[in-house]
Amino acid sequence: MIDRFEVGDLQGPIFNIDEDTDVEYDAIFIGGGAGGRFGSAYLKARGGRQLTIDRWPFLGGSCPHQACVPHHLFSEAARELDLARTLSGQLFYPEFDESRASILDLVNLFKSGRNSAHAFMNWQSKEQLGMEYILNASATVIDSHTVEVAGRRFTAKNLVLATGSSTVLLDLPGIDLPGVFDYATIIEDLDYDPKSCVIIGGSKVAIEYGSFFQAAGCQTTILTRSPLMATKSLHHVDEDVRQYVVKGMRDRGMSILEGAQPIAVIGTDRVTGVTARLADGSTVDIPCDMVFMGTGERANSSHFVEVLGVEVDDRGSVIVDDHMRTSVPNVYAVGDLIGAPMEMFKARKCGVTAARNIMGEDHSFDFTEYPDFLHSTYEVTWVGLSEVEARAKFDEVIVIQMPPPGVPHGDIPLPCAEGTMMLAFTYPEKTGFQKAIFDAKSRKLVGIHHVGFGAKDSFQYLDYLIHRTEGLSIDQLAEMNELFLNSGHFIQLSRLRAGAMELSSL
Amino acid sequence: MIDRFEVGDLQGPIFNIDEDTDVEYDAIFIGGGAGGRFGSAYLKARGGRQLTIDRWPFLGGSCPHQACVPHHLFSEAARELDLARTLSGQLFYPEFDESRASILDLVNLFKSGRNSAHAFMNWQSKEQLGMEYILNASATVIDSHTVEVAGRRFTAKNLVLATGSSTVLLDLPGIDLPGVFDYATIIEDLDYDPKSCVIIGGSKVAIEYGSFFQAAGCQTTILTRSPLMATKSLHHVDEDVRQYVVKGMRDRGMSILEGAQPIAVIGTDRVTGVTARLADGSTVDIPCDMVFMGTGERANSSHFVEVLGVEVDDRGSVIVDDHMRTSVPNVYAVGDLIGAPMEMFKARKCGVTAARNIMGEDHSFDFTEYPDFLHSTYEVTWVGLSEVEARAKFDEVIVIQMPPPGVPHGDIPLPCAEGTMMLAFTYPEKTGFQKAIFDAKSRKLVGIHHVGFGAKDSFQYLDYLIHRTEGLSIDQLAEMNELFLNSGHFIQLSRLRAGAMELSSL
Repeated sequence: MIDRFEVGDLQGPIFNIDEDTDVEYDAIFIGGGAGGRFGSAYLKARGGRQLTIDRWPFLGGSCPHQACVPHHLFSEAARELDLARTLSGQLFYPEFDESRASILDLVNLFKSGRNSAHAFMNWQSKEQLGMEYILNASATVIDSHTVEVAGRRFTAKNLVLATGSSTVLLDLPGIDLPGVFDYATIIEDLDYDPKSCVIIGGSKVAIEYGSFFQAAGCQTTILTRSPLMATKSLHHVDEDVRQYVVKGMRDRGMSILEGAQPIAVIGTDRVTGVTARLADGSTVDIPCDMVFMGTGERANSSHFVEVLGVEVDDRGSVIVDDHMRTSVPNVYAVGDLIGAPMEMFKARKCGVTAARNIMGEDHSFDFTEYPDFLHSTYEVTWVGLSEVEARAKFDEVIVIQMPPPGVPHGDIPLPCAEGTMMLAFTYPEKTGFQKAIFDAKSRKLVGIHHVGFGAKDSFQYLDYLIHRTEGLSIDQLAEMNELFLNSGHFIQLSRLRAGAMELSSL
Repeated sequence: MIDRFEVGDLQGPIFNIDEDTDVEYDAIFIGGGAGGRFGSAYLKARGGRQLTIDRWPFLGGSCPHQACVPHHLFSEAARELDLARTLSGQLFYPEFDESRASILDLVNLFKSGRNSAHAFMNWQSKEQLGMEYILNASATVIDSHTVEVAGRRFTAKNLVLATGSSTVLLDLPGIDLPGVFDYATIIEDLDYDPKSCVIIGGSKVAIEYGSFFQAAGCQTTILTRSPLMATKSLHHVDEDVRQYVVKGMRDRGMSILEGAQPIAVIGTDRVTGVTARLADGSTVDIPCDMVFMGTGERANSSHFVEVLGVEVDDRGSVIVDDHMRTSVPNVYAVGDLIGAPMEMFKARKCGVTAARNIMGEDHSFDFTEYPDFLHSTYEVTWVGLSEVEARAKFDEVIVIQMPPPGVPHGDIPLPCAEGTMMLAFTYPEKTGFQKAIFDAKSRKLVGIHHVGFGAKDSFQYLDYLIHRTEGLSIDQLAEMNELFLNSGHFIQLSRLRAGAMELSSL
């Protein structure tokens, strides 16, 4: 029913356009990733006419091809591998067999399957969403109303730029050696099983891929300038959460060198190590057979600067207003192309915002506040303020956390629920950590944080309740109908305190 | 810091009461399980004085001792075992070793660890919540203001009855043979590794324990009168969800005999089989070395009927109004003792409701609508209407589901997120199922259903948004900030349709 294809096998452009009508489109979306595809779908649903162009033969962009989807596969593998190691030889878990743990196997598994997501995206966009698109062809912008693709010119009232971002490659000696990868090239090019890795940078990607590499038996070192999870690109990270996560990574054997800087990638034919300057000023050579770039991303904006003269900031991100309008009339930009946060919700909603404005609405999108997550071998999720931020903002703050302050985690296998039940009865200190922060005066939830499994989905709704309604009070939480056990024990714990007129911590 | 103890080692009552003051309590809670403990905490927080009595040496009741907690451990083991079998010999999973799969090991693991939860409950109730309690002692009600426990009499303005429920034991020949268990006795008494099991009844417990037994290598047959998940005790189950779950159980090797009735348990010294009448009227003997009762629960009300004369219904559940008041003045009843749904949220909130009314508030609790879940090897979660119910109620209904109707699941590894990523790239048809149902006219979400992992927590908030606010529209869903990938793909899928004035299914 859905036509499968192999990305590499396709030659020439894929046209899915209505050739009968020669129109000026309402918008041409340059880039059919998260922002371009969702913007296109919304514009079409609003009755507009769009054309979406992508250099790849599929819609959906880097997410299903090289980014969020493989990341989630690898993070799930990391969780399963971690459990298999932790419980090795106990219960139904056999002695862990190092020889079976393979990064390459999982990369190849992903590559063998990603085409089904690509095929589905194309099918859904065409059949369910009625989109017009040209794929497997690069778009060249001629002017703010004209785009050339596959030798043809198309005109539109508006352009929506949505070409995303790429990894920042540091200007380091040896950076071009075989064995240096980023999240994209590791998918495309990995052809051996690395046994030791140095990650340069301390981004989310560094934490996520590093945790996976370590779990898959590849001894991993992270070189990071800032403490992990304390970079300014991650806002509202609670210090207790940070410490639990980073300690968990170290306990699992990772080497995390904070305040460190890479000096050179070493190797002749291929990578054999990294020279780094450590926090104490000393210089070391760290041997490894893989280097992974975890330094973050930069917008793919140069073509638009050159042709259209769109304004960009000092990192090259296209500058837009809250309607996604660039400095050039009728030209919008969305997604990673406009800079941080480089997250799916933002990319997609930017696309929708552009579409709504193009279709005549006056619609703005403010993404200063949002829920956030990352994976170590855990899911780590948060929204709202950290405890430190809350205490700076409110006179009286109460905290409901698990385990409670001062109680040794080994005494209390909480929080636990799906995902940590096996650990609760073997290594209670590995069951995770959670914290909810309330302004005692208004009784409102102002921040909520979770390390474990199964709570990530709910943080989307918690974000909505905290930020899009009049707020969520401890009394409203206490009135909810929990599904017990639950990953975030927030509802029932709130209920234990909500009876009091004067709130206190738990 | 938290005193550990072994339940069986404790002799005599545990007193944690303020002996200095001779008071009439505001309430004595008879039973310190979910309802009794949360009611007590709330009453205490409101400034009341309570005494909580339990026959067990710990607070928290059956949940951490024999019910929800072991169920969650077993369901997690079922998920892990299922993955280890499904991916046996692939990737990092070794060939599955049947000899390691053991129900008994997991029962023993649970028993070895449950005391830490008990110790924590006592510690929290005493140190954090300031409760007074007498444990390890049975309460005898003398009259509606007087309770005798451990040879002493205590008086209170109100009684709150919270003694829960027990498995219904059918009046079947052979039912007393060794090898017949329910969820409680399997924890206490199992001393061998069953290799084949017949489950009598089709309750949630039957589905959950049956899925665990099967995953642990015990060939399991469920004998059920009604189709699984179609009993009247489970409301709002969507038929597509039901079929996906039941097919999944059958595909994993379970035998599910619907329309069947047990006639006798067979065996001389111990269970060797069950005689059943099948749907076609024929009679068969099903050999097995374990029988498990999955027939549901009945309230432990007889003492209260006898002494206080509280009114009960035809199943023995104590009848209460929406304030949790029984037919006897100043006597409240809460939790499983008042009948279905026998769920944690209801028990705890019943306790809180009694406490609030006792402390002078006029507070009612309506639990006709609530989110619900069960485990097979999946988490199955739902809230609001099924599609059939929605179509009966509204003129125009649209459905957003994954996979979409008519698309073979093998073509599309969706829904997928944490918990199903390993399956998405190996057995896409095993990634689960999801459905959101909207009233097209009001654009509001009226039902939402999920089979997979990681969505359960969010259904607590979805229940709140659907039932406690003015409702949640597809437009509000589309405006949320998703954390991608997410277990319930509802936000981003809603966004693909929300642009349209006339909604259509996806």
